[in-house]
Formats: sequence, C-alpha cells, structure tokens
Amino acid sequence: MTPSLLLSRRDLDFLLYDWLGTESLLDRERFAEHSRDTFDAVLDLAAEVAAEQFAPYNKAGDADEPRMVDGRVEMIPEVRRALGLFAKTGLIASSMDAEVGGMQLPYAVSTACFAWFQAANVGMWSYPSLTMGNAALLLAHGTPDQVERYVRPMLEGRFHGTMCLSEPQAGSSLADITTRAEPQPDGTYRLFGNKMWISAGDHELGDNIVHLVLAKVPGGPPGVRGISLFTVPKYLVGDDGAVGERNDVALAGLNHKMGFRGTTNTLLNLGEGRWTPGGAPGAVGQLVGAENQGLACMFHMMNEARIGVGSGAAALGYTGYLKSLEYARTRTQGRVPGSKDPAAPMVPLVEHADVRRMLLAQKSYAEGALALVLYCGRLVDEERTAATEAERLRARLLLEVLTPIAKSWPSQWCVTANDLAIQVHGGYGYTREYDVEQHYRDNRLNPIHEGTHGIQGVDLLGRKVVMADGAGLDALRGVVAATAARAAAEGGEAAELGARLGATLDRLVEVTARVHEVPEADARLANASLYLEAAGHTVLAWIWLEQFLACGTADEPFHRGKRQAARYFFRHELPRTGPQFDLLAAADRTTLDTDPGWF
Amino acid sequence: MTPSLLLSRRDLDFLLYDWLGTESLLDRERFAEHSRDTFDAVLDLAAEVAAEQFAPYNKAGDADEPRMVDGRVEMIPEVRRALGLFAKTGLIASSMDAEVGGMQLPYAVSTACFAWFQAANVGMWSYPSLTMGNAALLLAHGTPDQVERYVRPMLEGRFHGTMCLSEPQAGSSLADITTRAEPQPDGTYRLFGNKMWISAGDHELGDNIVHLVLAKVPGGPPGVRGISLFTVPKYLVGDDGAVGERNDVALAGLNHKMGFRGTTNTLLNLGEGRWTPGGAPGAVGQLVGAENQGLACMFHMMNEARIGVGSGAAALGYTGYLKSLEYARTRTQGRVPGSKDPAAPMVPLVEHADVRRMLLAQKSYAEGALALVLYCGRLVDEERTAATEAERLRARLLLEVLTPIAKSWPSQWCVTANDLAIQVHGGYGYTREYDVEQHYRDNRLNPIHEGTHGIQGVDLLGRKVVMADGAGLDALRGVVAATAARAAAEGGEAAELGARLGATLDRLVEVTARVHEVPEADARLANASLYLEAAGHTVLAWIWLEQFLACGTADEPFHRGKRQAARYFFRHELPRTGPQFDLLAAADRTTLDTDPGWF
Repeated sequence: MTPSLLLSRRDLDFLLYDWLGTESLLDRERFAEHSRDTFDAVLDLAAEVAAEQFAPYNKAGDADEPRMVDGRVEMIPEVRRALGLFAKTGLIASSMDAEVGGMQLPYAVSTACFAWFQAANVGMWSYPSLTMGNAALLLAHGTPDQVERYVRPMLEGRFHGTMCLSEPQAGSSLADITTRAEPQPDGTYRLFGNKMWISAGDHELGDNIVHLVLAKVPGGPPGVRGISLFTVPKYLVGDDGAVGERNDVALAGLNHKMGFRGTTNTLLNLGEGRWTPGGAPGAVGQLVGAENQGLACMFHMMNEARIGVGSGAAALGYTGYLKSLEYARTRTQGRVPGSKDPAAPMVPLVEHADVRRMLLAQKSYAEGALALVLYCGRLVDEERTAATEAERLRARLLLEVLTPIAKSWPSQWCVTANDLAIQVHGGYGYTREYDVEQHYRDNRLNPIHEGTHGIQGVDLLGRKVVMADGAGLDALRGVVAATAARAAAEGGEAAELGARLGATLDRLVEVTARVHEVPEADARLANASLYLEAAGHTVLAWIWLEQFLACGTADEPFHRGKRQAARYFFRHELPRTGPQFDLLAAADRTTLDTDPGWF
Repeated sequence: MTPSLLLSRRDLDFLLYDWLGTESLLDRERFAEHSRDTFDAVLDLAAEVAAEQFAPYNKAGDADEPRMVDGRVEMIPEVRRALGLFAKTGLIASSMDAEVGGMQLPYAVSTACFAWFQAANVGMWSYPSLTMGNAALLLAHGTPDQVERYVRPMLEGRFHGTMCLSEPQAGSSLADITTRAEPQPDGTYRLFGNKMWISAGDHELGDNIVHLVLAKVPGGPPGVRGISLFTVPKYLVGDDGAVGERNDVALAGLNHKMGFRGTTNTLLNLGEGRWTPGGAPGAVGQLVGAENQGLACMFHMMNEARIGVGSGAAALGYTGYLKSLEYARTRTQGRVPGSKDPAAPMVPLVEHADVRRMLLAQKSYAEGALALVLYCGRLVDEERTAATEAERLRARLLLEVLTPIAKSWPSQWCVTANDLAIQVHGGYGYTREYDVEQHYRDNRLNPIHEGTHGIQGVDLLGRKVVMADGAGLDALRGVVAATAARAAAEGGEAAELGARLGATLDRLVEVTARVHEVPEADARLANASLYLEAAGHTVLAWIWLEQFLACGTADEPFHRGKRQAARYFFRHELPRTGPQFDLLAAADRTTLDTDPGWF
C-alpha cells in the first residue's frame, strides 16, 4: 500500500515543523545530536516500513485472528516477520535515552512515526506499543536489575511486554482487583489471581513476555491504596539473562472481538498450579517501586498510554479519510442538482456537496485529532526538557488537563470519521473488500480501553480541572486565550474565528465554575461526559485556529484546505457545544433523577 | 432467547392500543373479522417464533456466513428450517387481502409483528421481507397470471423474491442502469446485464426465486423515464405452475459484508449465456405494468420498503437497549461518586449516572424510532381504509413527508443506540460473546441501503416538503401543531414541552421557506442532510410528546419511564437542532465552496 493512503506526510511536516516548530528542540541538549534531516529520515523509515511490512497484513490479521491451540496462541506468521523487521529499525526506543540504546528523538517525532504504524495495522502495532510502554515504566521505576534483565531484551526485540491491570470482576474499578502477591523470604513474591483483557498476553513472537501486574500484598490498605506492581515474566530469566523455567502464568482463554483482531487479547491465570517454578506454587514476581505504590507507578505511564490511544484513533480516522477521498475522486455516480440531462456523464462523488461535507468532517476530525496528539507529544518533550522548572510545570499541568481529551476526543470523532468513510463508499464501504469497515470496527475499541469515555469525563471534570486549585484549567485557558489574542491581532477572518473561540472558552470556564458550585458529588459529576465532549470541541476549535494561523500567508491548495477545514469546524462543529454548556450550566438532573426501575 | 430481550411487549401494547388506538380500526370493513384478541394472538405468535426459531441462529448466521460453492449459495441449514416454520405461521401475508390468502391485519399490527423478527435475526428476516415486498408489488401492478404464477407460491413459502435495482456502476443513480430488455415476438423479453447488491439473490431455500428487475427497453427515453420492470424467475414456471427450465440468471459472486451477514448479497449476471432457456440467449422476463413505467411501480412500494428499513433499525436499537439494560442491572462495577469506602460492595452499573444517560439515550432512540414506524404503519392503514378521500389523501401526504425520516432517523440514531449498548457493556460489549457488537455491525447497513442518508435528505428537502405546493409539510405541521395544542390545554409540564415543540416546529417551517428562497439548486440542497437531521429530531420530539400525553394520568414505573425518556429527549436531544437550523437559515456554503483540490 502506498504511504499516501495511510497519512499525509505533507500534513505531518506542516504540523511538526510549520506549526509546532519541532526544529527549535534541536537547541536542547537532549536532542543536540539530531537535525531536521534525522527527523525526516525516521519519518521516512516509519512510513516505508509501515506501508510495506504492516499494511499488507492488516486484513489477514483481521480475517484470520489469533487462535488458542493446545494452550498456545497461534497467529499468521507475517506478524513475527514484520515485528522482526520493525525491531531492526530501532524505532522501539526512538524517544528513549541513548544509554539504553535509544535514539533520544523528541516525543512529538516518535508519536508521528508511530502514527504510520497505527494507520497501517493497528492490531499488529499493539505488540511493540505495549512492549515500549512496559519498558518505559521499568526505566522510570524499575531497579537496575529489572532494566538489565527485562528492558534491554525488550528494546532488542527479543522480549515482549504487557500491562495486566483488569480482572474479570474489575475492569474500570481497579480498587476491586483481588490478585494477591505473597512476599517470599528471598524478596520475591508469589502471585495468585486472574487477569482479564490482557492484550498480547500470550504469543510466540519472541523469547519471553514480561507482564507488569497489579496485585495486592495481603495486609495492605484497602482499595487503590493497597495496589502494588510486579514484573512477572512468562519464563524466569537467569542472572545471565538466559530464559529458563516456565513461570505459572497460564493462558486461560482468548477474547474474540469485533475489531482489533490482530491483537490477541487474553485471560491469564496466575498461580493456578499449572507450573510450579522452583518447585513452589504461585507465579514468581518482583516488586516494581515500593509496596502499595503500584497505581502511582502505573499512572505515571498512563498519560502516554492514553495519548497513544488517541493517536491510534486519529491514525485510523486519517487513513479512512484518505481512502474515502481517493474513492470519492475516482468513483463516478449521478449528477449534481440542476443538471437535468440524463445523457450527461456521471460526475465523481466528490462533486456532490454532501460527499464534500462527509470529507470535510473527516478532515476536521482526523487532522484535528492528529494535531492534538502531536501537540501533547510536544508537551511531553517540554515536560522533560524545557529550560525552566516553571515551563516544565506548565507543560505537565497542560498535559494533565489535555490527556482525557486527547484520549477521548479522537476515540469518539475518529470513529465518526470512519463511519463517514464507509458512507462515502456506499455499499462498497460496507463490504470487507474495502478497508474502511475494518477501521470502523478497530477504532470502536478506543472509547473503551485505557479508561472508558465516561471515566475520562470524570477524570477531566472531577480531577483535572480542579487539581492544584484549578492550575490545569488556568494553563489551558492561558494557551487558548493567547491563540485567540494572536488571531485578533491578525484581524480579518482570523480575528472573527478568534472571537468565537474566546467566547467559547469563556463559556467553558464559567460553566466549569458553575458545575463545581453543585454541592453533591453525584450531581456535580452526573454530566461529566457532556462536559468532556464540550471541552473537547472547544480544545479542537483552538487546535484548528492554531493551524489556521500557522498557514500564515501561504496559499497553496494545501493551505486553502486547512483554512476550509478550520471554517468547517467553527461553523458546523463548534456550535454543538452550545446546548451542552446549557445543560451543564443548568446542572441538569435528568439522568440522575431516573429511577432504575423506570427503564 | 426470551422475547423480553428482543422488544417490550408492554411497550408495543402501549403504542398500538393506548397511543395509536389500533382497536378503532376494527370498525372498518377491511378489519371487521378481527378483534383485539386476534391482534394479540399474532403478536404473541410473532414473539414466540422470533425468539425460539430466529434468535438462536443469529450468531451462527453471522459467524458462518453464506458461501458460494460450485456456483451455488450454501448457508447454515437452520435458515431453511426456520423459514419453513415461519411460512407455516401465515404471517408473510399478514396484511394482504384474504382473497390471496392474507390475514388482512392492519399494517401497523404487521409492522409490530415483523419487528420481533428483525430484533431476533435481521439477517434471516431479509428473505421473507423481500419476498413480501415482491409479492405486494406484483399484487399492485402485476397481471392475474403473474399473481397466479409467482405471488401464490411466494405466499405459500415455496418461492422467494428479490428486488434487482442497482448495478455495479449505478448504485444510487438508477438513471444510469444499463441492463437491457429486448422485446420478443411472444410478448416476453430477454434481459442482458449485471445486477449488484442483490440481497437473497441466490440460495436453495425454496423451489424458485422471482427476481423483480429494472431494465431498459432499447429505444426508450433516456434516464429514469426509460426504466421498465420485469419478473425474471430463476427457473421458468410452466402454465401449470411447475418449476421448469433454468433461466439465464447466473450467480457471479457474493459480497462479504461487515454485518447483515446472514443475508446473502449477490452479484447476478443476466443473459451472459450460461443457460439458454428455450434455446435462445438472454434471461426470460415478463413486463410488470407498462413499458417505461418501471420506476413508478417500484416507488409505489418504496415507502413501505423504507419504513421497513426504519423498523429494522429500530428493532436492532431496541434489542440492544434491552440487553444493555439487563447487563447494567446485573453487572456490578465501582461505586457512586461520594462513596469513599473501598470496602463497600460494588454497585450495579445502572447506579452510575453516566450509565443511566446511555440507557436513557438508547430508550429515547429505540422506543422513539419504533413509535415512529408504527405511526407510519398506521398511516398506511389510513391511506388504504380511511372513510373519506380527504382523510386518505392527508394520510398519503403525511406518509410521503415522513418516509425519509422514518427510514433515516432510526438508521442513524439506532446505530448510535447500539454504540451505547456496547459502551454500557464495556470490554465485554466489544467481544463477539455478547450480542451487541453484531447489532451495531448489522445496523450500520441501514443508512446505506434503500436510498442512502444523503439521498433521503434530498428527497425530503428537494421533493417531499415542496410537493403539491407544500401540502406534505402542511400536513405534518397540522398534526404536530395539534399535539402541541393538546399539550398546552393540559397545562403543567405537558404545556411546557408543547411550547418547546411548537417553537421548534415554527423554526422548521420558517427555515424550510428560507432554504427554498435560495435560487441555485446546488446551494439549496447543499445542506439537505442537516435538514433531514433537524427535521428528524423535530418529528421525534413530537413522537415523544405524543407518548407523554398518551400516558394520561397513569403512573406506573412504565409511564414514569416514558415521561422521563420524553424529558430526556426534549432536554438533551432536541436542542441539537438549534445549530442545524442556524446553518440552514444562513444557507451555509462551506461544503459547496470547498474545491475538491483542497482536500
């Protein structure tokens, strides 16, 4: 598949360089070895490997999903081959430290690189993605021994990693996990319990799988304050790094999903006695960080994981947009209104205003979502490398408040984009012969995993906009107002859009205060999902005005398209927030006052 | 599966009897043989057969979809068995004349009956549904010979029927079909061409398949005015009714779809020379109605076919709602805001306000959509049996204007309902172990077939609201205003809702006029999809106020739920129309002014 049907390199260049000024990061010590050329080279490499090694197997991984055979996971052999090639690129450690073999690329650049793979084959991408998240967590919180034993082989592509949080009875509610970790005299732990929804939880893609497992040490505090984090390898690893005895992590079953089928999703039983490593019961685990600090360690990585979900959603929205655009330009059907001659030739679909509406909407969702996640990627870079503590703090606050939006907005609207991509294709889009129905199915996972849509709403309204005395919201308000002010200074159409953004921002701030005047927690949070959506559209209008301004005086078709998508977003999308803000300001109790017995 | 997870019989009784006053139809001659008891008996029968014979094979028909083997369609054997049992019920002719073996039930009642089957197994339901549509068309436009030869065996369950409109190059654009029908000296025709997207186009479920085929007779007028309609049986039928020689209708391939997999969808080649019936080339066809009147005959049936799509969408939305409600009542997860004790037991999902939001939204979409299609069913009964010509005309006008909404609104919002049903289930809803992901996939066909969403918009804005000097819109305005007036007379909350409905109706009427002041056809219709959606939400608010009023003073939990869903619709849904009306009133040109080169 040509990379031009996955993402637009032109747009990535615009976003990374013209808008985000990524080259300015080259002045910082961490990125001093880099240049625009090295950035471009990894973007080219990612596009090429994604298009040639990932995209061709996207359909096969969906149609021929992983199976459980004799207690093992079997899948199409192309996955192992493609991941082997991916490992050779070194991209898995693209933003990690040079001392562990990383490239020390800006996080914004690696986010852009990874978007190519997400667009090409999101099901296959989960394997390196989870391994990266696991390695990053151990680099931040693990011991030198854990880094040596697990992280190095992961970054070399020999080991894979997972995150084991959920359990059958506790999905969103981590306070209720029951997996227990019993301390042993030698400082290790023995784990017993069931873990559910574990992506990449078992497979034969490498030499070993390192599970990061949340569990409770008996006697600890109740709820989330009693959660600890452990490394639990599938095979024990000797001090010499050799893979040895089988640990007691048993594959109990696979979940068969609507989409994301290329990613095997498992139920794992720990310590059920299938194996007895070292002759004793339980799965052997090593503590990561301190006891009862497991959730804090995990949340440290959660922002990046959630931005990764948003990025995947954006990438799927983007490739669906490009494919439906290609279809709309080549497929002819009917005539435009007013053309009454039935003998006139049919026109390309893109000539129909309603098809252009569906393309503009997709463009505004997919390009907007990608811009947002790259902005968040840039914030990660600022959080890590900005010159002053104040700048780093500001980036962290902004990232905290933007993360639920960067996770949920692409997950919601890029499914809608994929829905429109199907619709542009008509009946053909509903068949498995075209790609877009799979994107729609794959993308539908994103509002569920890594914290559901509802949980992101509560996170934003109940935590992020009030944390540190509202400092997160203030930070957001600051950057949005600054954009509106720049737009006002430009005058003309920019000023007009800036004024509308400013008014919406004022409304958001006012409504946030109003909601927090509600004394009862349940009433205050009852409309958190509406708040998330209204805040999301406000943020995206800001992102679109940013892009509008970044076009400057350039007037190629590319820039006209960017400006038109911004106009579309301000005219057709942003007004959706009006009724949402009204309901929030009124502290609407409709859902809360519904007796469950009335359904 | 228990019928109570498919539809609510209580709600059907409320809608058919308390609201629509279906019993009043018993006074009419056509329904004189019936009683409330016979209505109830067929509703019970439909629920039972749907739950016991259709629902159990819904998953199997999806997982093990029809295959093409040696030029024939193979499918799971349960379909043939279930359809045989369905044929024995006689429901296929439920609303047809007694003289052809029909039950002469009101159309509203048969629509309700069929909704059970659509909720149970929409993929299997296509076979009898298409056969019914085919038979109804031939009863209206066919010769006595066609009725005898084809309709009787169809109503006996021996033959099946299809509708062959689309072609590979002409999906939505029927003007561009190229299948040709050459007249023969004996009065028959020989057909040559390719038909695409033909549901139930080939299978071994009965003795024969009667295709109704649109084709052009050479020398006729161009475009849609040159389309004629033909019966083209798979096997020729002798004068004695015996199934004979194979006609030249060849199965050229199957379309493999995202959903609706139980319905085999085919590409058929007519007259390609695989068979030569009577020793001559071409597929043998008989004309239905007059030459060049094919589209008129087909459109005669189109309203009912489109209401059938709306009904199917509503039924899928409904069963998804009931299943997610059941899940939300039994699955426990987390605690409500403000409950800080981690040792407190987890609460059922339904206790979370955001889950209740998702249930209320589904309830408002699914019950609203079902109510709308039953109302349309009732209009069909009025159109056929009302006492005066004026009443019949008014019903026809109202049906014309409501049909694009009854087709598109359930298709749009009941996919959203299924989306929410998945979300209520969390990760489980994304697995194929639960039903809701299939409903979501199945339902996604509905905005595409029988006229896409965009085409319904153009039909409503460009044709239905302006036809007969706006008489259709006047008729709608009349019934909606009457409801608002009744609500005003009731006072209290009803009056408040009535005032909001009245204001929205005024806006709709005003915006309709404004749009039609735009001189250029392309600009006038550029936002037709927005118009369709705004008009749809207005109509649904009316449907919800009707239900609110129909509750009267009754105050059981059922009625409280109805009132609460009405409130939800007025507070959370109806305000969406505000920004849509604004764009329409401003004759927004954003999509029209987008140069295709800017994407």
